[in-house]
Amino acid sequence: MQKIHTVINQIGPLDDEAMWSARKRQDSLTKPRGSLGVLEELATRVAGITGNPLPEIDSKVIITMVGDHGVAEEGVSAYPRDVTIQMAHNFIRGGAGINVLATHVGARVVAVDVGAAGDLDSPHIVSKKVGYGTQNMVKGPAMSFKEAVRSIEAGIDVVEEECKKGMDIVGTGDMGIGNTTSSSAIIAAITGESVRKVTGRGTGINDEGLENKIKIVEKALRMNNPDPKNPIEVLAKVGGFEIGGIAGAILAGAARRIPVVIDGFISGAAALIAAELAPQAKSYMIAAHRSREVGHTIALDWLGLTPLLDLNLCLGEGTGAALGISLVEASCKLLTGMSTFADAGVSEALDRK
Amino acid sequence: MQKIHTVINQIGPLDDEAMWSARKRQDSLTKPRGSLGVLEELATRVAGITGNPLPEIDSKVIITMVGDHGVAEEGVSAYPRDVTIQMAHNFIRGGAGINVLATHVGARVVAVDVGAAGDLDSPHIVSKKVGYGTQNMVKGPAMSFKEAVRSIEAGIDVVEEECKKGMDIVGTGDMGIGNTTSSSAIIAAITGESVRKVTGRGTGINDEGLENKIKIVEKALRMNNPDPKNPIEVLAKVGGFEIGGIAGAILAGAARRIPVVIDGFISGAAALIAAELAPQAKSYMIAAHRSREVGHTIALDWLGLTPLLDLNLCLGEGTGAALGISLVEASCKLLTGMSTFADAGVSEALDRK
Repeated sequence: MQKIHTVINQIGPLDDEAMWSARKRQDSLTKPRGSLGVLEELATRVAGITGNPLPEIDSKVIITMVGDHGVAEEGVSAYPRDVTIQMAHNFIRGGAGINVLATHVGARVVAVDVGAAGDLDSPHIVSKKVGYGTQNMVKGPAMSFKEAVRSIEAGIDVVEEECKKGMDIVGTGDMGIGNTTSSSAIIAAITGESVRKVTGRGTGINDEGLENKIKIVEKALRMNNPDPKNPIEVLAKVGGFEIGGIAGAILAGAARRIPVVIDGFISGAAALIAAELAPQAKSYMIAAHRSREVGHTIALDWLGLTPLLDLNLCLGEGTGAALGISLVEASCKLLTGMSTFADAGVSEALDRK
Repeated sequence: MQKIHTVINQIGPLDDEAMWSARKRQDSLTKPRGSLGVLEELATRVAGITGNPLPEIDSKVIITMVGDHGVAEEGVSAYPRDVTIQMAHNFIRGGAGINVLATHVGARVVAVDVGAAGDLDSPHIVSKKVGYGTQNMVKGPAMSFKEAVRSIEAGIDVVEEECKKGMDIVGTGDMGIGNTTSSSAIIAAITGESVRKVTGRGTGINDEGLENKIKIVEKALRMNNPDPKNPIEVLAKVGGFEIGGIAGAILAGAARRIPVVIDGFISGAAALIAAELAPQAKSYMIAAHRSREVGHTIALDWLGLTPLLDLNLCLGEGTGAALGISLVEASCKLLTGMSTFADAGVSEALDRK
């Protein structure tokens, strides 16, 4: 727990001076003021996050946290539980969606085993195993409080290790059959929204499956009754190891003053936990996209984040985060690489002459 | 005019067989069906456009058409008219927003002088000059019918020349002080919407400037009374040389079966002209983004296009198209590069076993 407190205490406010300088430069660049819209706000925020008025995004990392869920035995997913480990092997071989998109945007994928229900012995998987899948949350807590703490610490450790190798931006990602069920429970618990409003079709269940899933989430919350003001308790009772890992990665990224690009629904649930632990971490979060999963918008609204993309994605793994990272990089390149009116000999707007 | 007719006649339907194969492959890839949302639809459409079920986007080009507008003398822009040529020089030196974003996505910028109000002698500018800026459309037609035809043909020629060098995708872009005024007039003329609804702040004029701009567009339409069913007449009476160039580039891209990524408001007006000339060209258009400029949504709706991005941009030059191209490329890489369930040894969904 000490590690989590230390990291939380390291999360400071954005650097106003760097943001002021970035804004001033934006207005001197050869374009109408504000014409790059969200990209201007984005680069300005990265200036505030990094403390560098001319931020450079070079080393890009997507951390994909892997974990299994006991609740998968309740038939909440369209896929069998084995798929978690099979997909982890797919990450290693480079055949998954996240591999393709990470390569496209020049990021590297760090796949982390926080809680797969089997051994994943490979030099290409970072092992931070807290357990072999969570317990079934309709029968009791998904994990112990201690395990919840350890999963968050696992995420902190991964980010700190990657920072040593050099990391200018981090994207979050997840793999875990059953984890939209867990994420719905977390979002309902923390925001107080009804389970029905935050529970969607995940990997593609039908109407009957959705009704079952809603009942399972309701049952898990009734059974465990997590205290919404205690995010680690929420994580322990209805969360997942990989979700804790993502929450820890978000906190550590914020502490290291690195922009943290949040993927979709599962990462959104993890971001809620991180934000409840450290509200100031929200300034470091960049929402990559709006997921098709219905509850995601509720999580984004609670966080006060506007997503960059809205492409009806619901794959997870960090796929949306990869695309988001490319936009953040683009925004910083515009800020640092465009000519100013003075340098380019371009006339300024008539009212500024 | 013969050249335009020839190109229009070459625009065929999308390749249904290639799209069917692409869809079939999408469903075999290691992800829940449909979970890549818009990116799946996009890659499928590129398969239909190119006739290749495994399309590759390698050579990427953004064509930025430059032209001046006589109507600029009515004070419709926040910037002096000289900025058109100054910005063309900025494109050459690589200091503009489009240069930065094109480099980011691995595209090359082809800047084309279709109608700048001065000479742009540089080996880095393709000269297809139709005239030294249009006439002031509140005093008469912006250009002759013959010039309108020549500007469209200029765009066709540029695309055909670039195809010889290799071009897998083309993005459109524009530079021309006064061209949001002209684009508003085109969109109002073709869609029949009120001028007020399709006229925005362009480079950032104030309320008073906006009222003036609306009056100017209304006056230009009253004075010239273009026949909405004759898109070349609309272009001649209230258009611009660079807008004609973009319309021609769109038609030629469609004829060559290349995805055409449409930038924002000005490119949207050009797309309307292209679509009125050849409705089947719409299948080849991919709307990169929704511009901040109010009339853009009206143009997109008329075209039946849903934009990929909504980032509150209004810079033009092809900046939105560059970001859109990267998403199209990503979608194709996912289609071609991801492993299938069979290859990766990943279990399929339970209802498909």
